[in-house]
This record gives sequence, C-alpha cells and structure tokens, in this order.
Amino acid sequence: QQMAKAEPVDLSGYERIQQHLVRPPYAPEHDQIAKGAPKIVEIELTVDERLMVVDEDTGASIWAMTYNGSVPGPLIIVHQGDYVELTLRSHTRNVLEHNIDFHASTGALGGGALTHIYPGEETVLRWKATKAGCFTYHCAPGGAMIPYHVCHGMNGAVMVLPRDGLKDRDRNALPYDKIAYIGEQDYYLPMDENGTYRTYRDAGEDYADSLAAMRTLTPTHVVFNGAVGALTGNRAITAEVGQTLLMIHNQCNRDSRPHLIGGHGAYVWESSFSDPPLTEMETWFVRGGSAVAAMYTFEQPGVYAYVNHNLIEGALLGATAHFNVGGEWNNALMEQVVAPRTMET
Amino acid sequence: QQMAKAEPVDLSGYERIQQHLVRPPYAPEHDQIAKGAPKIVEIELTVDERLMVVDEDTGASIWAMTYNGSVPGPLIIVHQGDYVELTLRSHTRNVLEHNIDFHASTGALGGGALTHIYPGEETVLRWKATKAGCFTYHCAPGGAMIPYHVCHGMNGAVMVLPRDGLKDRDRNALPYDKIAYIGEQDYYLPMDENGTYRTYRDAGEDYADSLAAMRTLTPTHVVFNGAVGALTGNRAITAEVGQTLLMIHNQCNRDSRPHLIGGHGAYVWESSFSDPPLTEMETWFVRGGSAVAAMYTFEQPGVYAYVNHNLIEGALLGATAHFNVGGEWNNALMEQVVAPRTMET
Amino acid sequence: QQMAKAEPVDLSGYERIQQHLVRPPYAPEHDQIAKGAPKIVEIELTVDERLMVVDEDTGASIWAMTYNGSVPGPLIIVHQGDYVELTLRSHTRNVLEHNIDFHASTGALGGGALTHIYPGEETVLRWKATKAGCFTYHCAPGGAMIPYHVCHGMNGAVMVLPRDGLKDRDRNALPYDKIAYIGEQDYYLPMDENGTYRTYRDAGEDYADSLAAMRTLTPTHVVFNGAVGALTGNRAITAEVGQTLLMIHNQCNRDSRPHLIGGHGAYVWESSFSDPPLTEMETWFVRGGSAVAAMYTFEQPGVYAYVNHNLIEGALLGATAHFNVGGEWNNALMEQVVAPRTMET
Ligand SMILES: [Cu+2]
Ligand SMILES: [Cu+2]
Ligand SMILES: [Cu+2]
Ligand SMILES: [Cu+2]
Ligand SMILES: [Cu+2]
Ligand SMILES: [Cu+2]
Ligand SMILES: [Mg+2]
Ligand SMILES: [Mg+2]
Ligand SMILES: [Mg+2]
Ligand SMILES: [Mg+2]
Ligand SMILES: [Mg+2]
Ligand SMILES: [Mg+2]
Ligand SMILES: [Mg+2]
Ligand SMILES: [Mg+2]
Ligand SMILES: [Mg+2]
Repeated sequence: QQMAKAEPVDLSGYERIQQHLVRPPYAPEHDQIAKGAPKIVEIELTVDERLMVVDEDTGASIWAMTYNGSVPGPLIIVHQGDYVELTLRSHTRNVLEHNIDFHASTGALGGGALTHIYPGEETVLRWKATKAGCFTYHCAPGGAMIPYHVCHGMNGAVMVLPRDGLKDRDRNALPYDKIAYIGEQDYYLPMDENGTYRTYRDAGEDYADSLAAMRTLTPTHVVFNGAVGALTGNRAITAEVGQTLLMIHNQCNRDSRPHLIGGHGAYVWESSFSDPPLTEMETWFVRGGSAVAAMYTFEQPGVYAYVNHNLIEGALLGATAHFNVGGEWNNALMEQVVAPRTMET
Repeated sequence: QQMAKAEPVDLSGYERIQQHLVRPPYAPEHDQIAKGAPKIVEIELTVDERLMVVDEDTGASIWAMTYNGSVPGPLIIVHQGDYVELTLRSHTRNVLEHNIDFHASTGALGGGALTHIYPGEETVLRWKATKAGCFTYHCAPGGAMIPYHVCHGMNGAVMVLPRDGLKDRDRNALPYDKIAYIGEQDYYLPMDENGTYRTYRDAGEDYADSLAAMRTLTPTHVVFNGAVGALTGNRAITAEVGQTLLMIHNQCNRDSRPHLIGGHGAYVWESSFSDPPLTEMETWFVRGGSAVAAMYTFEQPGVYAYVNHNLIEGALLGATAHFNVGGEWNNALMEQVVAPRTMET
Repeated sequence: QQMAKAEPVDLSGYERIQQHLVRPPYAPEHDQIAKGAPKIVEIELTVDERLMVVDEDTGASIWAMTYNGSVPGPLIIVHQGDYVELTLRSHTRNVLEHNIDFHASTGALGGGALTHIYPGEETVLRWKATKAGCFTYHCAPGGAMIPYHVCHGMNGAVMVLPRDGLKDRDRNALPYDKIAYIGEQDYYLPMDENGTYRTYRDAGEDYADSLAAMRTLTPTHVVFNGAVGALTGNRAITAEVGQTLLMIHNQCNRDSRPHLIGGHGAYVWESSFSDPPLTEMETWFVRGGSAVAAMYTFEQPGVYAYVNHNLIEGALLGATAHFNVGGEWNNALMEQVVAPRTMET
C-alpha cells in the first residue's frame, strides 16, 4: 500500500557490523560508549519450536516457541541511531506461523506486519533505533495467537544504549562490568482432572487448553530463563565485590517486581534511558510488556537471590535466580554481633 | 455538621461557562492554554442504568451503570484554578442510589458524601480544580456498592490542564492535535453452571452473583469503552503522520499497562502534570484508580493497536483499540528489506 | 566462611541509643532532622506466633507470625548513616524457625542468613542504614517458607530518613506532624468444601493448605494492620485541618495502590528518599515487597477513607482505613450548591 510508493533510503554511508547473539543470561560483545558513527547492526534470529522441561520436579513441560532456542530470546545491544537489520528464519520442522514485533522500533506494528513467516521461510527487516532504553520484542501473529506465542516463551529484549553510555541524574557516567539478562516467563500449563500437567506431541496441539488456562490470568509457573532453577545452584551468575552488574529484566506479558535480596537497585531505568534513573530502590517495577535495567555495585560477598518479590511467584512458582559474589566481608556494613543462641531466661 | 457553619464563598467575579460533554473516545471543546482568569465550568451528568452488550460474539451483557449513557463516563476538561460545577441527575427509571467521587477534588470523600441521589433526584456540587493532572471519577455509594458500581462501568475522567498547557521536563510547550479518551473497564460477569453468561432483568438483580465473581479478582472481560471491539474496525480512531495524539487512559479499579503497538509513549504523565513527564516509554502504567495521559506524534502510517499489554487481557479479554494513521511510509525508520520467502537451503 | 576472616569494625566513637518500638499504626519517638553524628540505634523484636481473628464477621482466623505481636511488625525509624542493632528473640512457646531480612541493609540476604533462630533462641545483628527511604523487612527462612511466613503477617517497615529530613524536588523542607503506619497484608486462608474457613491448633499446621491457597495468587483477605476494620470506626486515625500526615504503606508481597478518598498524595516517595517525590497523585503504587511514604496536608474536615484502590480489595477484601479530620469546612474548595432533591420534571 503506502509502502510500495515510499522513497528509497540511501544507507550507503553506514558501516555494517554483525552482532553474534549469545544465550541468556549472557550479553553479546558490545561497546558501552559508541565508537564512530551510527552503524547497521546485522543480527540473525531463527524460530525454533522445541519441547522444554519447565520444572524437573513435576516434569511439567511446554512446546516452547523460541528465537534461537532459548527462553527468553537473545539480548540484542545497539546504540541510539544505529539500525538493526534482522534476518528472521523459521526452521522447516516448525509447524506454526511466527513474526516479530520490536517495541524499540517505529511503525508496522513494530515490524510485526512485515515479518510473518511460515516454517521454511525467511525475511529481512531493518529498523532504526531512535529511542534509548531496554525494550522487549516478541512474536505477535495476531489475535489470540499473540498471548499464546508470548506465553510460550517467544520474547526477548533489545538494549538501545545512549551513544555516550549510561548516566545518572547529574549526567555522570555509569559504566558496568557485567550484564545479567533475565527473562521472566509466565506459563499457563494445562492440567488434567488429576492435576497432572498434560503433555503434547507438537507445538500448537495445546492451543485450546492453553487459552483456557490463560483466561484464568493465573500462571502455573513464573520462571527466569525458561525453567525453574535455570539460574540457581551451579547455574548461578557470578560476580565480585566492587563489580557493577547491569540487570536487564524482560517481562513481555505480566507485571513484575524484581528485588535483589541483600542488595538494591542503585540505579533503575523503569521507563527509558532518556529519563533520570530512579535510585536506591528496594524493589523495582516491570510494567508487563517491558524490559528494564537496574544497576548495582556489590559491597558484600555471598549468595544473592534475585527474585520477583511477589514471594509466592518467587519461591513457589519459580521466579528466583542466584548471584554468587566473591570478595571480603565488610563488618562496617553488617555484623553478626551475637550468633543464634539459647536465650538467657 | 461543620458544613452548616462554614463561611459562604463569594464567586461573583468568576465568569461562568458551560462545557458540553461528548461521548468517548472524544473530548469536549477546550483551550489547551487557558484564556483569561479561572472560571466556573458548568457540566451536567445524568445517571443512566442501561443494558449493554459487552461481547457480541458470546452475547455477554451487563446492566451498566453509566454517567450520560456511556462506559466510561464523558471526559471533562478544565484548567487548574477553575471550578467544576456539576449538576448530577438520576433518571426516574433507574432503580439504584448513586453518587460521584472526583479524585481531582478535595474533601467530603471527593464529593461522594454530598451527592447521594435516588432515581428522580438531582443535586449540584461545586469544587475547585487545585491540582493539574488526569483524574478518575466514579460512583462510590459506600461499602460493597463501591466496587459493584465501579465494575459496572460507573467511572470516567477529568483532565485538569495547567493554565499554560502541557510542558516537557525543560518547560517546553507540548501541544497536541487530538485526544483519544479510553476507558478500560474490568467486568466480572456471572456465569451459570454451563459457563453461559447470565442475563438479568434489572440493574441490581446481579448483585450477589457479581460480588461472588468480583471476589475472584479475575475479570471475565477487560474492554475499552464499554465493549469488546468498541474502538476497532470502522470504529477505530483516526490520525495522520505528523499529528500529536494525547491518549487519556482511565482505569478506575485495576492496574493497567497501555502500549501502542508500533509507537511509543513519547511523554507520559503517570502521576500528575506537576511532575516532569516520563519519556520514550514502551509500556506505561495506570495504577488502578487513576487516569493517565500519554502523548505520541505519529511517524509512520498504518494501523496501530493500542492495548493493555498483559496480552491475555489485550487479545483474549478485549482490551484492544485501533488507530488508523494516514500518511507516507518512511523507509529511513523501517524497511522490509526482504519480503517473506522460502529459505535457500 | 568469608565472615570469619573479616576485619573487626571499631564503633567505639558511636553513641548508642535505644528506640522503644510501638504498636502500629503509631511511630516511635524520633527526630525528623538528625541531631549530631550517626548513632547506633538499639531495637528489640520478639517473634510471637499467635492466633488472630482476621474478620470478626466470618470468624476467619490465622496463626499469625509476628514481630512483637502485631501485623505489621513495628515501624523502625533511623537516619541515614545510623546503625540498627537488633536483638531478635523467639518465644519458647513458638513452634517454627524464623529470621529477618531487612531490605534497607546490605549483604547476607539482608541479614536473613545471620539470624535464623528457633523457639527459645536469640541473636544480635547490626547493620548500617546507608540508603534513605522506607524499606520493608520480613521473615525469610528459605524456600516455600518465605511466602508462607510473609503471608502470615511476618513483615514490617524501617524508615531511614535523610539526616536533614524530607525535601521536595527543589530541596525545600517537608516536615510532617504525624505518621500513619499502615501494613497491608494479603492472607490466603484455607476453606473447607463448604466454604468455611478452617481453624488450626498451632502455627504451621496450615502449611500444606496455605501453600495450595497461595498458589491461586488470589487472596481471601487484603487487610490493613492485621484484620478487617483494624483502622476504622473508633480505631480510625485522627488529624486536624492544617496538619501534615506522613502515610507509610508497607506491602511485603503483593502490589498495592493506595488512595486517600477526598485527599491526595501531595508528595509520594515510591522509590527512595534519594529521588524527588512524585507530586499531587490521585493513587500511588507500592511495588510488592516495598514500603512507600506519601505526604498530605489536610484542607477539609471530615472522614477520609484510605484504601487500596482496587476497590474489590478495598471494599470487599478489607483494605480500608479511616482518618477522622477535625476543623472548619472550606466552601472555596467544595460546596454543596443544591442538596439532593426531587427533579423538577
Ligand atoms: Cu510465534
Ligand atoms: Cu508488545
Ligand atoms: Cu452508582
Ligand atoms: Cu476513587
Ligand atoms: Cu518467620
Ligand atoms: Cu524481601
Ligand atoms: Mg519444583
Ligand atoms: Mg500472516
Ligand atoms: Mg523498557
Ligand atoms: Mg469475542
Ligand atoms: Mg446515602
Ligand atoms: Mg491521574
Ligand atoms: Mg466482614
Ligand atoms: Mg536455618
Ligand atoms: Mg521503599
């Protein structure tokens, strides 16, 4: 329609680079402060429908709909003014139609209108990152298929950094040492009459059951990075006292409220990088359908639990990650003056 | 009590004007920058209990409790320092007691304590708009009747503009071309044992059933402007590339998280117009019991979906509106480089 | 581990004071502007498992898990830079293990890792209040026990004031006359097949039933200060026109949205005292797992209802408090021009 008559755009002056996307909770290689002029950043995402175990204890599983095989999809990082040029493919073995809607982009339903592909197809979309912030992306094939795909894990995040990096309210630089990229996923897994999670042979077979479960608005699981325990125990994220961690939390559907037990959100960008960060928060907020960034510099060693602080969701439904932090204990911040002992009565 | 002895107030110097209220999603005629001194703005609201279809597909219906016949009630617009002088009437054919609580006002339960009327009655209330922002108003007859009336649609919004109009963080003017006034309504419609929505003969007859449904805290419908599809298809809101839209979202009971698919909240006032707006948001937040304003200037033509980005609520329960935007496509913002095609394997 | 080798800390120069904690909704004696150098503030909390009636109408009850016998636990107030030195004890008659996690502190899971005590035990923990704001504290014994204890009332708040007191965005002083400390508690009380609330003989006996109820994410009760009606009627909070009230709202688990019917949140600190307060809010937000402060100066006399503005939660599930405000009515703010009367038809 309008697009057919649109002016061509000359991007011949733009340098092209490729960004190699990696599995969550890791971040792709990137500069915090942009080098040189805006670029065209080429990325590839492949749609992969795959059976995933959500909770090993109960055997609950889902035919996850993924970008590049993980829930969440990989983190993409560019700078404001860059172009993202995405090649989107769908494995021939898939069964459903998919697309992608980037909250960071402008027009055509975030690209969703231009990227509908069937198994065995590919498409290329280019969009300009005009706004700085963390933004969710997700599949949005239309109608009930939108929440169906999103609630099957088909979402991830783009971080669009300001060209000169992150800043506090007074425009002081806020560099980070490390990124922890956490995708919170609400699942609505159908059960049979006995309360046993159903299993299905194929993506799409759970459609009617899933929609019924979703209408309760009550998830059976709320997990980080696809499954209960995906980021705990020996899969915990590691850091050191003195290191600054940037926690990127993606929740594509349902509100969340991350909290770092034993730490804080020293700087939190709930809206975008265009606004001054909120500071020293105990618990911050992820409006359902958002990605947010929170920054913290560790001051004490030990295990930190990063949770959705609806503690039912955090402890019963699965929304807990662990950060193992090395370093020296500082009694000036906290000291066990008297260890637990029998009361003198 | 205290009111009987209160000093009379002399408003003889105030000019009186009448504001003709219109049906949502439209806004009454108004100046963005106030002309002259504060005024007394006279408005009229008539309580109207009426049977409304909530979803044509299922035939789900409700005895809506309305101000002026619509869900939400009409948008009222004044400037800070103005008085609102409301004549509130209730049709003789109504069956319930009603009143009105303006979040924008001060004292007497927002006017709720002074406006209880029965069918066939009228009352006049005057209050000063001392605070600038978007504010919800709603019926609040007391106790369980409060959520019962609010969840039957009895709520709307007042926008109190700063006298010199809207501003960004640096006090630059932010004029708008158009208002889209969207009331999000959570309904809790009782079903029979077969899952069929019940029908009732009169407002009030569903009281016990409704309260039981409300206690689940799980709405059966979350809709914009009263019914599924009230703002989609040929009832979509229209705009043009280059036009600035002010989206006013009223949610009187339950949290919401509006998102404009393909666009952004360039400026968002979640709190009041006294605070700098948040900027470049992907998804913004409506604290349940609030009205908020978000501003966006369209950069691309096409259909935009405006949704509650809990996508189950947006796509399954009804919270979707459409904006049809005319103009020329800009390949510099987004381009379909390769249309979907079979992969070369 | 690391703690054994940690450097000792010399606090010999710090003055020690004792803070006598009082029952909610009251605040302990304190200075708004700190006098002199940072201090060590000694406090005592005793764990008390006790059977409490949640709703007199239905007889619904819970084996509440409390600090000092109340839900919420007492409000603690210190200044930024002070140390809190807590002696935590557990009554010999208790049956469960407990501990305490202070969101305001740094390290060791907020102190949770250092304070596990069994009935008849005590421990002493000292931590530095490095961040200014209102912060929740709660029991966090680990795993499913965390939401189980928190949803049985085991939480409260610390307010860490800036040394020079509260300020607006332009750094003008914002003193208050009075504090109302409100703990919102979501309960998930198990019912039998007939819908009657179950009773139990001991704390802990409801564990399996409670966990099943909690997994619904749908509370049976949402109350202020432990029980339906704890802050209404003759237990209402009192104030006078011209007085400034600081409302501290603690919600340790679930999001909330406080609203003062007939008033406003003139200044609201949703994040911390390090950020400029939001202003003139109709309804503010408590991220689940947070305590927030909102300030209001009364302009009209009368009864104000302070509610969670999900009105189902406010009016049906219990989340309502009353403030009775004395003084003279001001017709310049609001006037009943025509009292309800029969319409002239
Ligand atoms: Cu998909
Ligand atoms: Cu989206
Ligand atoms: Cu009413
Ligand atoms: Cu209200
Ligand atoms: Cu405990
Ligand atoms: Cu906590
Ligand atoms: Mg498990
Ligand atoms: Mg298609
Ligand atoms: Mg974001
Ligand atoms: Mg339908
Ligand atoms: Mg009455
Ligand atoms: Mg508002
Ligand atoms: Mg009762
Ligand atoms: Mg232990
Ligand atoms: Mg707080």
